[in-house]
Amino acid sequence: MTKEERINFDPEKLRQFTFRVFAHFGIPEQDAHLATDVLAYSDEHGIDSHGIARLKTYTDLLQAGKINPRPRLKIIREKHAVATVDGDNGLGLVIGPKCMEMAITKARLHGQGSISVFHTNHYGAAGYYPLMAAKQDFIGMSMTNTTKGVAPFNGVEKMLGTNPLAMGFPTGEEPVVLMDFASSTVAYGKLEIASRAGEKVPLGWCLDEMGKPTKEPERMMNGGALLPLGSTREGSGHKGYCLGGIVDIMSAVLSGANWGPYAIPFAIDSPQSEKQVGKGIGHFFGAWDVEGFRDLREFKQNMDEWIRTMRATAHLPEKPKVKVPGDPEWAAYKIRMKKGIPLQVPVVRDLQAISASLGIPLP
Amino acid sequence: MTKEERINFDPEKLRQFTFRVFAHFGIPEQDAHLATDVLAYSDEHGIDSHGIARLKTYTDLLQAGKINPRPRLKIIREKHAVATVDGDNGLGLVIGPKCMEMAITKARLHGQGSISVFHTNHYGAAGYYPLMAAKQDFIGMSMTNTTKGVAPFNGVEKMLGTNPLAMGFPTGEEPVVLMDFASSTVAYGKLEIASRAGEKVPLGWCLDEMGKPTKEPERMMNGGALLPLGSTREGSGHKGYCLGGIVDIMSAVLSGANWGPYAIPFAIDSPQSEKQVGKGIGHFFGAWDVEGFRDLREFKQNMDEWIRTMRATAHLPEKPKVKVPGDPEWAAYKIRMKKGIPLQVPVVRDLQAISASLGIPLP
Repeated sequence: MTKEERINFDPEKLRQFTFRVFAHFGIPEQDAHLATDVLAYSDEHGIDSHGIARLKTYTDLLQAGKINPRPRLKIIREKHAVATVDGDNGLGLVIGPKCMEMAITKARLHGQGSISVFHTNHYGAAGYYPLMAAKQDFIGMSMTNTTKGVAPFNGVEKMLGTNPLAMGFPTGEEPVVLMDFASSTVAYGKLEIASRAGEKVPLGWCLDEMGKPTKEPERMMNGGALLPLGSTREGSGHKGYCLGGIVDIMSAVLSGANWGPYAIPFAIDSPQSEKQVGKGIGHFFGAWDVEGFRDLREFKQNMDEWIRTMRATAHLPEKPKVKVPGDPEWAAYKIRMKKGIPLQVPVVRDLQAISASLGIPLP
Repeated sequence: MTKEERINFDPEKLRQFTFRVFAHFGIPEQDAHLATDVLAYSDEHGIDSHGIARLKTYTDLLQAGKINPRPRLKIIREKHAVATVDGDNGLGLVIGPKCMEMAITKARLHGQGSISVFHTNHYGAAGYYPLMAAKQDFIGMSMTNTTKGVAPFNGVEKMLGTNPLAMGFPTGEEPVVLMDFASSTVAYGKLEIASRAGEKVPLGWCLDEMGKPTKEPERMMNGGALLPLGSTREGSGHKGYCLGGIVDIMSAVLSGANWGPYAIPFAIDSPQSEKQVGKGIGHFFGAWDVEGFRDLREFKQNMDEWIRTMRATAHLPEKPKVKVPGDPEWAAYKIRMKKGIPLQVPVVRDLQAISASLGIPLP
């Protein structure tokens, strides 16, 4: 991939800008802080695709009145350790942290907790939520369905989103173990980047508009589809399809949201399915109290040992070492909190446009 | 792959043989029936790798006194919806169904239930357990860690098992949706088959003893390693590693079993790690009460619609249609219950040897 030009921003100042933008749309102060924290998590941890780069889309949706700035979350069904929440069409960035916290509270009471949510919107990086749990010594999980983009195994049209799954585990001396990955081979953003750079992509990432494997990102972007993790028959693409299906059902069918190809698109100008099979999109949050299973101190010691064991795996001398899931995020954090958040020029232009239109100075 | 010669057996008669073999080792009648049902599930549903083909290994382990035929399962820690069970070194085929049933009972009471198990052994096909839940209108999940065979992403040595994950969802008129897949690109068995047939395997399945990608199955089998789902950097092999890690931690670290490279090998002649970090291997079972989240009838209607929507995905005319996870199993079941279970000749030879050694006639 080509190196794109980037401009560094102070993390705290970006947070202030984001907060003011959300507050501008009448989002209550506390909620605006939650949403800001979710977006900032991505930028500060190197997940460029899910941070402030998406502020423009959230702003568009708020401006168009497509997202409710003052949602009243309602539990519409509950049974001890589990509940379903109506997100009242609020920002996923606000609904997400609140519902993850509810799952943790339930886990504290019952040993574990699950919250399924419908009538919600894009919730940022999936990994933010299990990290909330892990910081409180719980095991955390989050899933969300997303706009259709991925063909089921053997299919040639978009029927599922890139449907990510994230889990986080508390540790002792070592940093939290955090898995956060989409169930497609790659995210749509990787094709956009290749396209902008005029580059081809590897076979196995996507299909063209005829349903044939292609190396040309534009052909996927114009009527093709992404492939599920595993990509092909030889690569066991049916497994990525299984994973995408699990996330779709747990997030959207269980909660009563729009599932599969009916998921509400994130971008304001994306065509929307006329048919609706539920309300909004769906998330699923889970938390487990380690103490319900095992002595917490022992578990954490074992996790530390697990981490060190994986890191010590033999590797080819010319190739990178084995990392533990989460390591790339913690490494990016260290650098970015010192040197600033390197934003791509098109993202900075978006922020300048928001700044000009709302009269909020960009720091 | 080449077609191997197969001999058809009556499913009911195979069940009787299996039951008598287990009973021979002093396994109580009810437990022997459970174990038989788990093994028969695989054979009757086309999962040849996890059925009676493994009876020889179970027998070897029982014969050698390495598995306790009369385990006393003990809850060693519990908090309402969750518990940890000491499997007392019994057959996973007996411990598995009992612990899945405990998870379902907890879900009935608390909305969901989780059981983590240590000091257990190989539990057969992961999909058996969520199917138990789905038949009772619960969402079910099972995971287990297994003997080391897979290299972490960027690594070149075996550190994790093929660690499968399975989930099942109740439906209305359509058959249960059942996902059951290993977190490696392929199972070890696929390399054995290729090796026996003198065939090469696709790049992306495994590494050789030097840590380089290889097409020669024997080189993986002699000191190489399988690759995690996604296989390569381009294919997002780090995601399969994440999945394998999740299964390892939930099954073995959370319960107090041997995790990662320390997992007890299934085959009796496999070298065993001298270091032990827990007891036996570990499983994790989860169940969710749909009624805690949503009206069951509505959920099932939505599941039926989900299934029909996925099946209707456009596909290339010359290629197979899109299936729903579980479809291959239900299709195999229909055929096998009519035509019998087609066992491979080496499997029949194993059964004949068991028959001769124990004096139990093979039907």
